[in-house]
Amino acid sequence: MKEPVRITVTGAAGQIGYAMLFRIASGEMLGIDQPVVLQLLEIPPAMDALRGVVMELQDCAFPLVRGVVPTSKPEEAFEGADFVLLVGARPRGPGMERKDLLEANGAIFTGQGKAINDYASRSVKVLVVGNPANTNCLIALQNAKDLQPDQFTSMTILDHNRAIALLAEQTGMHVAKVRNLAVWGNHSATMFPELLSATVGGKPALELIEFDWYRDKFIPSIQQRGAEIIRARGSSSAASAANAAIEHMRLWSLGSDSVTSMGIVSRGDYDITEGIVYSFPVSCEAGKIEIDRSRSLDDFCVERLQVTERELLEERDAIKHLL
Amino acid sequence: MKEPVRITVTGAAGQIGYAMLFRIASGEMLGIDQPVVLQLLEIPPAMDALRGVVMELQDCAFPLVRGVVPTSKPEEAFEGADFVLLVGARPRGPGMERKDLLEANGAIFTGQGKAINDYASRSVKVLVVGNPANTNCLIALQNAKDLQPDQFTSMTILDHNRAIALLAEQTGMHVAKVRNLAVWGNHSATMFPELLSATVGGKPALELIEFDWYRDKFIPSIQQRGAEIIRARGSSSAASAANAAIEHMRLWSLGSDSVTSMGIVSRGDYDITEGIVYSFPVSCEAGKIEIDRSRSLDDFCVERLQVTERELLEERDAIKHLL
Repeated sequence: MKEPVRITVTGAAGQIGYAMLFRIASGEMLGIDQPVVLQLLEIPPAMDALRGVVMELQDCAFPLVRGVVPTSKPEEAFEGADFVLLVGARPRGPGMERKDLLEANGAIFTGQGKAINDYASRSVKVLVVGNPANTNCLIALQNAKDLQPDQFTSMTILDHNRAIALLAEQTGMHVAKVRNLAVWGNHSATMFPELLSATVGGKPALELIEFDWYRDKFIPSIQQRGAEIIRARGSSSAASAANAAIEHMRLWSLGSDSVTSMGIVSRGDYDITEGIVYSFPVSCEAGKIEIDRSRSLDDFCVERLQVTERELLEERDAIKHLL
Repeated sequence: MKEPVRITVTGAAGQIGYAMLFRIASGEMLGIDQPVVLQLLEIPPAMDALRGVVMELQDCAFPLVRGVVPTSKPEEAFEGADFVLLVGARPRGPGMERKDLLEANGAIFTGQGKAINDYASRSVKVLVVGNPANTNCLIALQNAKDLQPDQFTSMTILDHNRAIALLAEQTGMHVAKVRNLAVWGNHSATMFPELLSATVGGKPALELIEFDWYRDKFIPSIQQRGAEIIRARGSSSAASAANAAIEHMRLWSLGSDSVTSMGIVSRGDYDITEGIVYSFPVSCEAGKIEIDRSRSLDDFCVERLQVTERELLEERDAIKHLL
């Protein structure tokens, strides 16, 4: 059995946290030979609920769990952390403008970036789930000066999986037959789910579907899927977001056998401004994330890559005093 | 890859269902080589919420999922089912007596027993999670005349795991060191978590703890744990109950490497009245559940076995017109 690793989850008593922790504890994220210590951060008003979550974790008698630490202190939560899932974020309240939302979350992710810098393992892997995830991730990594930017990522695998599922449904094929799809840019309504390089059962996706459907139905459906879930469920997607976060960390740690999508710091690939956190097609091996640099994008794609890039630049401008 | 199996979950849009489905879909219940079709039953007012759950399942692009069928019709939900998890039940409302609760659930489980009898696979395995689970299970199996009683079980693994966790905590040992503990009788405040045969790290549990603690703290804590969770969380245990249900079905199907606890039809072992659904220490092999008949119980144990037996006989009397 391996040595235990420390996994920090913020917003641990929230809906996504609740859907995530039991799967992490059972070994779904890092494998059933990897013992874990769970370090759970919440804000003080949520500590009672978090205590209930900890009791339920205890009540599962998970063989892999070596400890559970509920706390409202970032220095305790991030101490020695090998994996950090930043789930907790300020949701948009009534009358809040986008700028207010960026600002409110900016304060949270500035503090958490600093705390990760000061307390986490030097090889920590960080995933930002809390929205606006790309820009929150940018703030966190800019405030963790002693760590490498490529230790920080933001989540777009949920969008990636939504795109796979919708393309599979439209072509009447199973999801496992879809390959090489990518979600580019911001985790927001400007994200671009690209099918130019995608295949279904070995055939180019764009030969199997109408371009009009792709442009007018597929892309907006993926961009608006979150809102559609809220309308049906009456609350936002929690279990599918938790599933995506687990998959993101599993692929990053244990490797991927096909292309997926992750928000990472741009190094200028595909002419995306260096330094912003942007979702690219990637694959993972031995704990490293590699961009798929092999794609030839047409004008339709490039234009959409730029739209979502512009939004990320505007977001960066709005919080530039925090960087 | 194996042929897909059909898994029915009732109350699929409820909290336990929501905590359970994504783990079943990812392969945690039956293994990552077992494709599944999920057949999800809800009452008509919950069909919108269920639609949201189905969208989220789709959004995970689970490789093992071969189909998801949301329905409010039992004949659709149970059609060809290989595994049935009866999670949905009527909760106790304001002013409801225990007898009213038994009656309200009696109607549900009578209908579901009949529908399982008429539509499910002839080798179906049924787990009742919805409370009062033992008596609901009795009603279901009595209404499934063409199936064997041992195809019906009720859940006490949650109590079993709670007992393991508390004993491990008290002795300062890891949960994986606890063996041979058992929970007997009804899933209610009369259940009896027995430590006479239990060991921790190879040593008899009762040599490691004070008998007074066992009688006055341990037993009541396990019996009242559900209520304690509700006080902390503000809602009842969902993720830990879902975890237990998954474990119950996994052990039943794939085998257990140590003793666990399950509610099964009594054949008179340990002098428990034949025909009632009673939790015994069991192990599982090749899809069969075997009672551990090796225990020597002392007067302290026998008395407690009888208390919880009497409660089950009273419950049976209250719904005998449904049998």
